[in-house]
Amino acid sequence: MPVDPAALTRITALGSVPEAGRGLVRDLPVRWALEEAGIPYSARTLTFLGERSADDLAEQPFGQVPAYNDGEVSMFESGAIVLRVGERSEALLPRDPRARAKTISWLFAALSSVEMQIWPLALLNIFFADKPWRNEARPALEGNVRRVLGRVAAHLGEKDWLEGEFTAGDLMMVTVLRRLRSTGLVAEHANLAAYLARGEARPAFQRALAAHLADFADQATAA
Amino acid sequence: MPVDPAALTRITALGSVPEAGRGLVRDLPVRWALEEAGIPYSARTLTFLGERSADDLAEQPFGQVPAYNDGEVSMFESGAIVLRVGERSEALLPRDPRARAKTISWLFAALSSVEMQIWPLALLNIFFADKPWRNEARPALEGNVRRVLGRVAAHLGEKDWLEGEFTAGDLMMVTVLRRLRSTGLVAEHANLAAYLARGEARPAFQRALAAHLADFADQATAA
Repeated sequence: MPVDPAALTRITALGSVPEAGRGLVRDLPVRWALEEAGIPYSARTLTFLGERSADDLAEQPFGQVPAYNDGEVSMFESGAIVLRVGERSEALLPRDPRARAKTISWLFAALSSVEMQIWPLALLNIFFADKPWRNEARPALEGNVRRVLGRVAAHLGEKDWLEGEFTAGDLMMVTVLRRLRSTGLVAEHANLAAYLARGEARPAFQRALAAHLADFADQATAA
Repeated sequence: MPVDPAALTRITALGSVPEAGRGLVRDLPVRWALEEAGIPYSARTLTFLGERSADDLAEQPFGQVPAYNDGEVSMFESGAIVLRVGERSEALLPRDPRARAKTISWLFAALSSVEMQIWPLALLNIFFADKPWRNEARPALEGNVRRVLGRVAAHLGEKDWLEGEFTAGDLMMVTVLRRLRSTGLVAEHANLAAYLARGEARPAFQRALAAHLADFADQATAA
C-alpha cells in the first residue's frame, strides 16, 4: 500500500466528515489514481469546516481538498491531479495520442457533463430535505441525470471500460457514478451498474477507499 | 480571423439556439482558444434539438457540441479541447511545469468548482420559472455561488489574471462567469467584474464571439 508518511507526493484530505459524505470526498479519486500508478503518497488531514490558513488557501484557493504536491508541481482540483498522476503513469493515461485525447475527454465529461447534472439532485437532499416542493423539483432533475446516464450507457455498450482499456476517464466516471448510490438511477442500466461494480472491485480502488476511511477513524477519538 | 472552411482543425457548433443561450454555447471557449492560439478552424453546425447520427455520437457521445478534430486526434468536452489547443500553443498553456500545473488546476476549477455551483441556479430559470417556491430555493443556491466567487476574487486580488499571465484557466473562468450575466453576483466583487470585462475585451474573444453568433445569423433564414 503506497501510503507512506515520508513520500515525496503529498495530498490533503479531510479528517472528519458527516457519515453521508464518507467515501465521496474528492481525495478518493486522487488516492485511487496514485494506487493505480503505484506512487507512494502521504495525506495530511484538514478539518471539514474549519478556518483555512493563508498557506492552505495558496495551495487550494477554494479551501477544499485535495491539494497535491509531488516535489515538482503543486496542484488543486481532483480532475487536474488525476491527469497529472496519469502523466506519471501509463496505467491511467495511454501514450498513444488518440487514446490519450479520448481519456482526457472522458475525464472532463465525468465532471462537467455527468456530475454537473447530479449535483442539483444532491442539493435537494442537502438543502431542501424539509421542503414540501422537493418532490416537485425531483423529476426534472432526475430527467437530466437519466439523459446523461443513458448516453454513457449507450457508449459503454458491452465493453468493460469506456474506451476498451481502463483509464483515468473510467476512474473519474466511476467516482462520479458513486454519488448516485442512494438512488436507483445507475441500476436502470445493467451495463452501467456492472461497470460501477467493476471499478469499485479494482484492488487499487479498495486500497484507496480503505485509506480514505482510515483517516476518519484516526480522528474519531480526537474530534 | 482563423475561420477557414478548408482548415485541418474542425469543430462542431450549434446553428440555432434560443436567444438566452446565444453567447453561452460551449463552442465559444473552443473558438476563443483557437483564436488566441492563431489556429485556423472550420465549424460545422448541428441543430439545437435534433436527432444525432451514429457518427455524431461517436464523435460526441452526449449528442452535444463541441466536438473537435485536428487531424491527429478527435475529442469532446470544451475543457478537454481547450487543454489540447493549449498543448498546441504556449499562448494558453505555459511550458514551465509549475505554471502549467496551475493553469490546468484553474481550467478544471472553472468547470468543476465554479460552474458546478452556477448550474443549479440556472436550472431555476430553465425548469422552474413558474414555480412559487423558486424564490425560496434561490438564496441557498446563490449562497453557493457567492462562496466560490468570493474565493476566486480573493485569489485574484489586484492581479490581471489568476496566475499573473493570461492562460487557458482564465479563458475558461471568464467563460463560466459570463453565465452569471443575468445576475448581479459577479458585480459584488469589483476586481472580478473588471477581470470578466478584461477577458471579454480581448480581441481573440471578440472574434470568437462574432463567429459564434454569425452561425446563428446564417441559419435564421434557413430555419
